[in-house]
Amino acid sequence: MIDLRSDTVTGPTPAMRQAIAGAVVGDAVIDVDPTVDRLEKMTAEILGKEAAVFMPSGSMTNQVGIRVHCDRGSEFLCEADCHIYHYEQGAFAQLSGLVAHTVAGTGGVLTVDQLRPHIRPVNDHMVRTRLVCLENTHNRWGGRIQPQENVLAICQWAAENDLRTHLDGARLWNAAVATGISESELAAPFDSVSVCFSKGLGAPVGSALAGSAAFIAEAKRTRKLFGGAMRQAGMIAAGAVHALEHHRARLADDHAAATRLGDACRQCESLSIRGDRVDTNIVVVEIDTAWGTADQMTKQLFQNGIDCFAIGPQAVRFVTHLDVSESEIESACRIIRTIAETPASVTA
Amino acid sequence: MIDLRSDTVTGPTPAMRQAIAGAVVGDAVIDVDPTVDRLEKMTAEILGKEAAVFMPSGSMTNQVGIRVHCDRGSEFLCEADCHIYHYEQGAFAQLSGLVAHTVAGTGGVLTVDQLRPHIRPVNDHMVRTRLVCLENTHNRWGGRIQPQENVLAICQWAAENDLRTHLDGARLWNAAVATGISESELAAPFDSVSVCFSKGLGAPVGSALAGSAAFIAEAKRTRKLFGGAMRQAGMIAAGAVHALEHHRARLADDHAAATRLGDACRQCESLSIRGDRVDTNIVVVEIDTAWGTADQMTKQLFQNGIDCFAIGPQAVRFVTHLDVSESEIESACRIIRTIAETPASVTA
Amino acid sequence: MIDLRSDTVTGPTPAMRQAIAGAVVGDAVIDVDPTVDRLEKMTAEILGKEAAVFMPSGSMTNQVGIRVHCDRGSEFLCEADCHIYHYEQGAFAQLSGLVAHTVAGTGGVLTVDQLRPHIRPVNDHMVRTRLVCLENTHNRWGGRIQPQENVLAICQWAAENDLRTHLDGARLWNAAVATGISESELAAPFDSVSVCFSKGLGAPVGSALAGSAAFIAEAKRTRKLFGGAMRQAGMIAAGAVHALEHHRARLADDHAAATRLGDACRQCESLSIRGDRVDTNIVVVEIDTAWGTADQMTKQLFQNGIDCFAIGPQAVRFVTHLDVSESEIESACRIIRTIAETPASVTA
Amino acid sequence: MIDLRSDTVTGPTPAMRQAIAGAVVGDAVIDVDPTVDRLEKMTAEILGKEAAVFMPSGSMTNQVGIRVHCDRGSEFLCEADCHIYHYEQGAFAQLSGLVAHTVAGTGGVLTVDQLRPHIRPVNDHMVRTRLVCLENTHNRWGGRIQPQENVLAICQWAAENDLRTHLDGARLWNAAVATGISESELAAPFDSVSVCFSKGLGAPVGSALAGSAAFIAEAKRTRKLFGGAMRQAGMIAAGAVHALEHHRARLADDHAAATRLGDACRQCESLSIRGDRVDTNIVVVEIDTAWGTADQMTKQLFQNGIDCFAIGPQAVRFVTHLDVSESEIESACRIIRTIAETPASVTA
Repeated sequence: MIDLRSDTVTGPTPAMRQAIAGAVVGDAVIDVDPTVDRLEKMTAEILGKEAAVFMPSGSMTNQVGIRVHCDRGSEFLCEADCHIYHYEQGAFAQLSGLVAHTVAGTGGVLTVDQLRPHIRPVNDHMVRTRLVCLENTHNRWGGRIQPQENVLAICQWAAENDLRTHLDGARLWNAAVATGISESELAAPFDSVSVCFSKGLGAPVGSALAGSAAFIAEAKRTRKLFGGAMRQAGMIAAGAVHALEHHRARLADDHAAATRLGDACRQCESLSIRGDRVDTNIVVVEIDTAWGTADQMTKQLFQNGIDCFAIGPQAVRFVTHLDVSESEIESACRIIRTIAETPASVTA
Repeated sequence: MIDLRSDTVTGPTPAMRQAIAGAVVGDAVIDVDPTVDRLEKMTAEILGKEAAVFMPSGSMTNQVGIRVHCDRGSEFLCEADCHIYHYEQGAFAQLSGLVAHTVAGTGGVLTVDQLRPHIRPVNDHMVRTRLVCLENTHNRWGGRIQPQENVLAICQWAAENDLRTHLDGARLWNAAVATGISESELAAPFDSVSVCFSKGLGAPVGSALAGSAAFIAEAKRTRKLFGGAMRQAGMIAAGAVHALEHHRARLADDHAAATRLGDACRQCESLSIRGDRVDTNIVVVEIDTAWGTADQMTKQLFQNGIDCFAIGPQAVRFVTHLDVSESEIESACRIIRTIAETPASVTA
Repeated sequence: MIDLRSDTVTGPTPAMRQAIAGAVVGDAVIDVDPTVDRLEKMTAEILGKEAAVFMPSGSMTNQVGIRVHCDRGSEFLCEADCHIYHYEQGAFAQLSGLVAHTVAGTGGVLTVDQLRPHIRPVNDHMVRTRLVCLENTHNRWGGRIQPQENVLAICQWAAENDLRTHLDGARLWNAAVATGISESELAAPFDSVSVCFSKGLGAPVGSALAGSAAFIAEAKRTRKLFGGAMRQAGMIAAGAVHALEHHRARLADDHAAATRLGDACRQCESLSIRGDRVDTNIVVVEIDTAWGTADQMTKQLFQNGIDCFAIGPQAVRFVTHLDVSESEIESACRIIRTIAETPASVTA
Repeated sequence: MIDLRSDTVTGPTPAMRQAIAGAVVGDAVIDVDPTVDRLEKMTAEILGKEAAVFMPSGSMTNQVGIRVHCDRGSEFLCEADCHIYHYEQGAFAQLSGLVAHTVAGTGGVLTVDQLRPHIRPVNDHMVRTRLVCLENTHNRWGGRIQPQENVLAICQWAAENDLRTHLDGARLWNAAVATGISESELAAPFDSVSVCFSKGLGAPVGSALAGSAAFIAEAKRTRKLFGGAMRQAGMIAAGAVHALEHHRARLADDHAAATRLGDACRQCESLSIRGDRVDTNIVVVEIDTAWGTADQMTKQLFQNGIDCFAIGPQAVRFVTHLDVSESEIESACRIIRTIAETPASVTA
């Protein structure tokens, strides 16, 4: 089975397992775990921030970041299709009592002009606008990279209006490799950045939140509140350290593979690429209703050896990663083209 | 000063004051207040619901209604410009931990097709979609009446998908008078309805939430939680009873007055009516930037004897009500036309 | 029926009704209601605070006060039997996410030594201790007055430890009349004070929260969030103004009446007074199990013309107020003594 | 340094590291991780429950359990010194809006008679009592074992009163080894049980919550909300599996070591054992003020090679675990006796 469901399915490599087995650890809750400490310092340095804190998931790093930025009675602005709004069970509201103020971008990309009218006047009828969240790369828009000029304009406008800024950079590593702009440059305009080690980088577990030292101190407190403080977490942090050291550059291979998949899809009349771009390692394909539905497509793909997700009634997502070989991509292209040729109704 | 800021500014009439002074009262928290009881029964009957409960404000009736409908981990669908989302300080999130899922309508009006794609699949990444909220008449879209066929289609779809429905009917009285459709018919498709006595009806204080007996029992409990349980509330309920009995039909006068204001505005090149309609007692005027800004407009209007609100950078709102006489409307039309003739920059 | 259930059952007097009918009003949400304004200023002055804000209930003034004092992640210290903890539906937790840290006092009275060990060290495992709440007079301990020396010691200790202090003074008026210490002196040690107009003072509806100007500004914002902002609230504020001007001194009569009731109970072998004191207008009577239960007692009292509440399996509460005449108190004493003479089991 | 701060400081053994390195893993969020699955099934079986779910910490398992049991507007009863109330940052209130209703036990042990009066009547003034939480062994009372007859009486009473029951069994393994009663028998009376693998069992990270299948399904959803869903979590679950298989019986050694420490302390006039018992692997020592303070004691102990925590102004806690050898215990006994002999003031 060619597993294109997500880059989160990647397993630890033998070298990573060895690094994990040999990790030097301590009790990170009451003391310091040296490997966690090393990972946090590495991450902070790569992202150009004062400090970072390790957590068990990207949902936690995002939701802790938002909570620390936004005191009671606040809202944050975000793109209408972003992960924070759709895929984190509304923790910002459920756990932190905050309002998500969604603004529809174009292809997952917001401009400062789209955001400008949404900042609220100060009065007792309204929540206070406090934070802007961006996502780079943008998951639901096919791994779309945020143009750095948009990011700069938005973050400058935010600063002028006393708004904080948070970057959901779960796949920031991919944006850096694809653009050639360093992670620290991509992260620089933001007050806080969240990154994941367990997606394209291939570590088994873990994410980090980076920002100023004071921000991270409060984030550590909130991590405890959320139940995310772990004891000898160095055992998993060791996998993340290994991933940072060995798996960043190779993301280019995943991008090349995604481009090949995208090209194959483009050749099919019944398929089109969402946003008409493959920026990184994700391809979102829109299926012509004349062919059938996304559910029919994923079923046929599965029967032919490709595992992937429908992410809408007519949308299917493919994600490339280190556990998919070149030859598997080749097979996948062939299988997709074959299936896309014949409408589902004919096959059924 | 001609006060067109809101229909909430209406003072109690002498007859209403007399009704208030003579109200028979009791302790409505530990027992029954007969006047509150009478108001709740009248309201339930007018709205065609099993029961109703009196509260100090329309924000409370809306937010209590939403909380009772939506258990933890839920979201509600609502029009992107609605009162519940914009003007109630995000209580749904701050107090109840809920997500508002906004959908942009057309001129404040939603169709079932616009809502359909927004119901969420059931999985652990997402909140559960539980409730649809509509607003009739729609405040920010100039007192716009929801077409009953849209309402029926939406509420039927909601029921089929196990969603509850709530109507913010703060100005439902206006919709009933303007359409000739009874309040009970307008309210029938909804599980719950919130109405205000202190807007066009002219009572000093109070709103009610209506629905099934079980729903209202839980709403009473939640009213206590919010601090809205009042002792001898019959003193103010008496004003609302009087308003229900004497002030509903006369809303037609307010609508006629608003239509006249709207016609006057239409004659001005620098002004246009939002949504190009005046359905009830609210006129939202968009100001041509060539003339100037909404703030400049309200300032000039104020200097010439009209008090009103800017509700956006280029938008001014006029609301008619029982404390504005016909001759004041005539004056207002004249003043508006005069001011609109000369760009603000010229006057300044 | 002699109604000793609560002083909240008091109805407006004819003079108060006249004051209400003639109230000068405005829209207190978008503007100023002159009568509300007058009431808030009177209250602030009587309590010796910079500002006050009118709300529909004492639960709201307490819960708004606590929310404004305590940011996210805080707890407040309070006496284990206090109203805020028991009778306000846990709004501090449900709406504001706060922890109540209860400390058992002696007869409803806390000493600083009892509180001292409960302030928390600062670490990520624990909430932050932020606020101390006292209740004067103490409802569940029979209208018990807090000794001013305890209050002073507690508030000084609180200030030294960077804790805020809030007084639930729903019946502070009674404490002032009974001790001869002015309300402003009783309120002076506290950062905020909540008072009720609808209990012994006899106004139909309403409470106020007093404190610094900045605190009250934030409390007004929170009142809006809770749905407690009312339009022409002057109609009910007029009752409260009248009560402040005419009903404070007469609370001495209620205290004399309660003392007589207490004396009558003391003469009964099967009854004892909780805390062995009648400080103000509340008498809590503990019933000997040999006689029977509190439910049996209230039933027999009701059959003989006295309405009152059981507030525990063996505890019955009597509250005196302006709607109970001297002769009714005389009757009540006689009835209680007669019933208490014969065990419930014998009568049944 | 002899580390007696906590049994959470235990590092993975070489055999455990090997088990971790070779773990078979999958993506536990979108699919199944076989090692996590195995751990959850083993845990459920040992605890005699239908299902279990793995989480990154014991705070998360407790707080998720409480949230799933208690819908909005609920409170839970718990012992006044328990971990859930004191050491989990009030997450029950901060994240879930719940009230903790604390009841003081005797030596950390509650009887059903102590709990009985605290169940609330059903009315709109009060939260609803929903859940009882016990802690076995009880951390702050020196690893105290809950007598099983108390547990049975409390849980039976809870069931009769429609209350759910949750056991914080972070150190249930210790209770089982010390009493000879199996974990499943100790857990049987409870609706849910939380256990930790990273304390005495010595796994690096992780806890589990066990209960009925329906309860665990909802707990998994809540784990996602809290950010506790991890991808290839089998890497750490492998450590827990190893711990379950190899480290349970050896807890008897930790208990013997603690008993020796306790005996040494008893020989010192300036020291006494909290609750006068050493049931398992924790010794809480109360320091005579004549000797000095807990802070002075921990400082002197540290200077002499023992690391431990002050858990109150006069209380010091020692915890034994697999990384403390017999000879270290012998040294520790000697050091403690020597230090306790001379008052801190004399030494300083």
